[in-house]
Amino acid sequence: MPKKNKFVIVPDSFKGTLDSTEICSIIAGEISLAYPDATVARVPVADGGEGSVDCFLSTKGGEKVFVPAHGPYGEPITSFFGLIDDGKTAVIEMSAAAGLPMVEGKKNPLLTSTYGVGELLLSAIERGVTKVIVGLGGSCTNDYGCGMACACGIRFLDAEGKPFVPTGETLSKIEKIDFSGKHGALNDVQIITMCDIDNPPYGPNGASYVFAPQKGATLEQVKLLDEGVKHLTDIIRKATGNDYSTLAGGGAAGAMGAGMVAFFGSTLQMGINAVLDTVGFDELISDADLIFTGEGKIDTQSLRGKVVIGVARACKRQDKPVIAIVGGADGDMTEAYENGVTAIFTINKLPQDLSVSAKFSKDNLAFTVKNVLRLLKA
Amino acid sequence: MPKKNKFVIVPDSFKGTLDSTEICSIIAGEISLAYPDATVARVPVADGGEGSVDCFLSTKGGEKVFVPAHGPYGEPITSFFGLIDDGKTAVIEMSAAAGLPMVEGKKNPLLTSTYGVGELLLSAIERGVTKVIVGLGGSCTNDYGCGMACACGIRFLDAEGKPFVPTGETLSKIEKIDFSGKHGALNDVQIITMCDIDNPPYGPNGASYVFAPQKGATLEQVKLLDEGVKHLTDIIRKATGNDYSTLAGGGAAGAMGAGMVAFFGSTLQMGINAVLDTVGFDELISDADLIFTGEGKIDTQSLRGKVVIGVARACKRQDKPVIAIVGGADGDMTEAYENGVTAIFTINKLPQDLSVSAKFSKDNLAFTVKNVLRLLKA
Repeated sequence: MPKKNKFVIVPDSFKGTLDSTEICSIIAGEISLAYPDATVARVPVADGGEGSVDCFLSTKGGEKVFVPAHGPYGEPITSFFGLIDDGKTAVIEMSAAAGLPMVEGKKNPLLTSTYGVGELLLSAIERGVTKVIVGLGGSCTNDYGCGMACACGIRFLDAEGKPFVPTGETLSKIEKIDFSGKHGALNDVQIITMCDIDNPPYGPNGASYVFAPQKGATLEQVKLLDEGVKHLTDIIRKATGNDYSTLAGGGAAGAMGAGMVAFFGSTLQMGINAVLDTVGFDELISDADLIFTGEGKIDTQSLRGKVVIGVARACKRQDKPVIAIVGGADGDMTEAYENGVTAIFTINKLPQDLSVSAKFSKDNLAFTVKNVLRLLKA
Repeated sequence: MPKKNKFVIVPDSFKGTLDSTEICSIIAGEISLAYPDATVARVPVADGGEGSVDCFLSTKGGEKVFVPAHGPYGEPITSFFGLIDDGKTAVIEMSAAAGLPMVEGKKNPLLTSTYGVGELLLSAIERGVTKVIVGLGGSCTNDYGCGMACACGIRFLDAEGKPFVPTGETLSKIEKIDFSGKHGALNDVQIITMCDIDNPPYGPNGASYVFAPQKGATLEQVKLLDEGVKHLTDIIRKATGNDYSTLAGGGAAGAMGAGMVAFFGSTLQMGINAVLDTVGFDELISDADLIFTGEGKIDTQSLRGKVVIGVARACKRQDKPVIAIVGGADGDMTEAYENGVTAIFTINKLPQDLSVSAKFSKDNLAFTVKNVLRLLKA
């Protein structure tokens, strides 16, 4: 394949070493050396966590809108969201208003709130968007998204019928949910929630037990949080008839995954699928000669949310070759090939433990891509 | 390049993990899966050490001839050499008569002899060969090849004019060399010596200081051995006018490298060059579509004796693509590309230290080759 006119680069981050924007730059740099006249489309993949808005903006173009909002402890902050598709779609990363780095030194998922995320959602809707993508991940909260819901006009009432803004600590006090004040425009907007995990809202694999400790909760507090999440799930079931107790992804971002579905009728979507949909991937690759994807480690134990597999499936439908550049390939790769991966190359230039090789990731990635391109040109 | 008719596989061993014959098998296996109808030529590269005869025989076909000889301590052994090219060329690995594994538990380079290697040489010559390839490496000796020379009729005389068979310990006792009894046929035969190291016969980088310790010599004994090698080098210079004191490779196999040149007028050659010459590499690749080479670690610090570089240079002359599959790629590879390497792929499926990854070498190699071929077919 000596001549190539168009490449598409669509990598996940290599967790802990390279973000997806850097990976795009490195691969694009090698392509421009090998094929100076080629067109290169970069699609850094966001998983919904920190940096997701920038990922979408860098791919699609658009506007980063800064607005006043409130942080996890109700403090005034300046937060942001992205507008793409000529202002028709908003992209929100919840960590921009309820992110773990915002509470460094004062982590406490019993008290923190997603209220600011709701403010971002309202700001976006007031600009007339028809679609909102909300990225979960990197949260400091365990409030089921109740703060967010309150900001949007939903009311949570205690046993005495008194409305309050629940946090992790007070989820168990909710006795009733009043949807009557919910901002009307929310019903006319498509809301997509990005989350790459499949944990349920509560229980041993739920939001509190798995994620609350890293948000500062003690084991005692974890139990309290988990009971609160279970309690609210029961209340929701009684109120709406919908049972989210086993919802995969419902445990994302302190059970905000479940909240997005319960309060806004949102769809939970894997990051890679949200990205492929949003960037119009099928059309993007229709005239491409070769697609590069990648992730930190490819394994075929669980294909859920895997960027390489998601990309490969999309490429396979158009019979496009897709090369996966990865930090590691664990186990048998037959399933990857069957899903459309043309070839997999690992970036480990030397036999080194990750603790050693991590600092050479950029060079190692560039080396591997260079040689793939050299082979293609030969 | 979807169609491929002929592949040539010409790898070095991956020192400590895979020998070159295994590597050929693994690569050939993957080729047969990807291109069932392709012709595959395997050229496992020998470096002159143990296994070299088998390497040549597996590539060229021929005969492995077993003959009686004497081991490092004069004990009767059955040794062997290879006959290739319709019996016109003999291949001898000196370790088959003076190898380190033969003296396990009784290593002593002061006393061990290469006499048996000389017997192999005579046996081969008596079969009418016109060319002998002698592989150095893996020796237990430090006798300058004097034992071998004695077996071939050369006499070493002490201060009293008395002939003796020198070993490492008694090199310093040599006062005169008598070539008059040297087997006449030796002068009509081309003798090529394979050695991949460039150490001189003596001095800090010489045979004794660098290699005698692993053959069992104490530091005191190393000094004695080194003085002996220097002494004989002086004697040779006085007797023949030829100064081998700085001969690159002269220090190979306990200074037998220098002995091969001094006693038999042999040419020292890198293993890869001897192999390429002997297998008729230029013709072998003339109708090949792709060449695979490889080695344990490619670096461009020293290109001397490097299999990948030697192969690449030969391929470059015919503008043939050559892919290097390596255990590690250390540093900048520009020089490798300039010497003709099309592309380099490392086999490290996961970021693991060699101590961990070594046991997965076969799988890792197969994985890497499989993906290179998948890319080529796409």
